[in-house]
Amino acid sequence: MVIPGVEVSLRRHPGLRVVLYGDEKVIQPLLERHPLVKARSSLVHTDVWVNMNDKPSQALRRGRRVSSMWLALEAVKNSEATVAISAGNTGAWMAMAKFVLNTMPGISRPAMAAIWPTSRGRSIVLDVGATIGADAEMLVDFAIMGEAMARSLLHIDRPTVGLLNVGVEEIKGVEEVKAAGRMLRNSQLPIEYYGFVEGDDVGKGTVDVVVTEGFTGNIALKTAEGTARQLASYLKAEMGRSLLSKIGYLLARGAFASLKEKMDPRNANGGVFLGLNGIVVKSHGGTDPVGFASAMDIAVEMASNELVQKIAADLASKQNLMELNEAIEQPKTAAAS
Amino acid sequence: MVIPGVEVSLRRHPGLRVVLYGDEKVIQPLLERHPLVKARSSLVHTDVWVNMNDKPSQALRRGRRVSSMWLALEAVKNSEATVAISAGNTGAWMAMAKFVLNTMPGISRPAMAAIWPTSRGRSIVLDVGATIGADAEMLVDFAIMGEAMARSLLHIDRPTVGLLNVGVEEIKGVEEVKAAGRMLRNSQLPIEYYGFVEGDDVGKGTVDVVVTEGFTGNIALKTAEGTARQLASYLKAEMGRSLLSKIGYLLARGAFASLKEKMDPRNANGGVFLGLNGIVVKSHGGTDPVGFASAMDIAVEMASNELVQKIAADLASKQNLMELNEAIEQPKTAAAS
Repeated sequence: MVIPGVEVSLRRHPGLRVVLYGDEKVIQPLLERHPLVKARSSLVHTDVWVNMNDKPSQALRRGRRVSSMWLALEAVKNSEATVAISAGNTGAWMAMAKFVLNTMPGISRPAMAAIWPTSRGRSIVLDVGATIGADAEMLVDFAIMGEAMARSLLHIDRPTVGLLNVGVEEIKGVEEVKAAGRMLRNSQLPIEYYGFVEGDDVGKGTVDVVVTEGFTGNIALKTAEGTARQLASYLKAEMGRSLLSKIGYLLARGAFASLKEKMDPRNANGGVFLGLNGIVVKSHGGTDPVGFASAMDIAVEMASNELVQKIAADLASKQNLMELNEAIEQPKTAAAS
Repeated sequence: MVIPGVEVSLRRHPGLRVVLYGDEKVIQPLLERHPLVKARSSLVHTDVWVNMNDKPSQALRRGRRVSSMWLALEAVKNSEATVAISAGNTGAWMAMAKFVLNTMPGISRPAMAAIWPTSRGRSIVLDVGATIGADAEMLVDFAIMGEAMARSLLHIDRPTVGLLNVGVEEIKGVEEVKAAGRMLRNSQLPIEYYGFVEGDDVGKGTVDVVVTEGFTGNIALKTAEGTARQLASYLKAEMGRSLLSKIGYLLARGAFASLKEKMDPRNANGGVFLGLNGIVVKSHGGTDPVGFASAMDIAVEMASNELVQKIAADLASKQNLMELNEAIEQPKTAAAS
C-alpha cells in the first residue's frame, strides 16, 4: 500500500519528490506498475529491514546504519530529505528516530501527536504513547510543540491549549498536571492556555491542542477509536435487520456515505513525532493507499510550514517561563517555612 | 427526578423499601403526587444538605452528622439500609462514604466502578476517578473488587479480568501495571486473569472487568462518552440534510430507535463505590427518572447478591497472593546482587 499511497500523494503535491528505502527486488516491480512514482522517486536498496515484532533495542542493534528505517532518518539528518515516514514497527521507528535525530535543545523526551477529528474540526492530542510518564516541565514542552503543530498543520493563528485532567476545578488531578497548569497560566509564552479539559472535551473540540502524558493519551485515543468502531457496527447491524430499515438505508445512502467519510480513520492517519531535530511521521501499519497518502499529506504540510523552526523559536522563550515560575514558587516556600 | 425514579424502581422490585433523606418541604409534596413511593418509603427530614459546588472537605465539615448524605450513609453503617444512593456532588459523596463506612480490611483506598456497554454486552471498568494514582497492590485490589462485582451484577461465574495498558506485550507500560500483572498471573486467587488490554478492547468487551488507575479510567470513560455523543450528532445532522435521507430515516426509524436504546447512557447510569463496608451508588446528577431507576436497579442487584461479602471473602485470600509474590520476587533480587 506504500507505493500506491505515494502515487496518490505525488499527484496532490506537484513539487514533491520521494526517496524510497527497502528491498529493490520488492520495490522495483511495483515501480514498473506505478510510472508516476518511478519518475519522481529514487530507490535506495537495503538488505536489512526492521520487522513488525522486533523490540526497539533489537531493531537498533540489527538495523544500525544499514536498515531502511535508519537510512531514511539519516537522510533527514543530512538534509537530503525534509521528512521521514514509515508504516512499520512504531517502537523501533521512534527509538531509531530519537537515536539518529536526537531531541531538540531543551527537550528531554519526544512526544507522538495524533490528529483527532472533533465536532468543530480537528484537534491535536499529544502525547499518545511515545513517553510513559511526564513531569510538569515535559507537559509544558508538549504544550509548546503541540501549539506549533496546530499552527503549521491546522493553520490556526492562536491555537488554544488545554491540559487533560479529571475535573475542571483547580483542585483536581495529579500533581504534575496541576503544576503544568500553573506554569502555563503564569508563563509569558505566546500560548493561548485554556485551562483543564476533561475526556469528553476532546471530541467536542473545546481546545485545538490537548496535552496529556503518553499512557493516558494512548488509552484515550484507542478507547475513542474502539467506541467509534463499536457504534458503526451497531448501526450496520440495525440497518440490516428488517426490510424497511434496508430500504431506509438505501434512500439515505448519501447521508451514510457522508457519515462514513467523516468517521473514516484514514483521514486522520499519521502520528507525528515531535521534539526531534527533524520531522518524522508514523502511518498506521494496517492502512491502505488512501490512508498512507493522508499521512504523507500531513508530513508535506508540516515540512512546508517549518514546524521544527516554529518549535525551536518557542523553546527559546521557554527559559523565561522557567525563571518566572521559579520566582512565583519561591515566595510560597518562604511563607510555608 | 429522584422521586419519579424511585417509583419506577419500586414497581420493578416488589420487596424494596426506601428511606428518603432531605428537606420535607420539598419531598412531601412530591410524595403526594407519587402515592406508590409514599406507601413504600419513610422520610427523614434534614435541614442541611451538600451543594453541588461544595468541596469534599467543606461538605465533611458542614454536613457531618446532620446532612442528608451523612444520614443515608449512617443508615447503611447501622444496617438500617442495605445500600445508599445519591445523585448529588460526587466528590462529597465519596469523601463522606469513606468517612462514615470506612474502607474494608486490607483495602487502602476505594474505587469507583462504571458499567460499560460493549459489543458483547456489559463490562465493568474501575477505577473511574475515586483514587488518583494507584500502586500495583491497589490495582490487584481493584481486580478483586471488580471481579466480585461482575459476579454479583452481571451474573458471570468466572469473569475475565484485564489490566488496561498501552500495549499487549509484556515489556510495555508503567511499572505499577507490569507489577500488578505479575502478581495477578502468579497468584492463587480465583481470578481469571486475561493479561493486558488496550483502550479499544474496552468497547469490544475483550474482558468482563477492566482494571486501571483512576486518572486514566476517568479520562477513558469521558472520552468514550464524548465520542458516542459526537457520532450521534453527526448521524442526526446527516439524516436531516436531504429529503431522501429524511424519508430513509422515517422508514428505518425502528432501527434508529433500537440504536438509540443501545447507546442510551441512562442504561449504564450508576457508578459503584467499591472497597467500603457497605454498598454505595452514585447516579449521574443530570439524568432523568429512567436513569435514576437504572442506578437503583444496580444497587438492588448488588445488595441482593451480597457484593460486600463476596469481596470480603476474596480479600481474605489475598494474603496468600502477597506472600507468594514475595517468594517470587526474592530469588530475582538474589540473582541481581
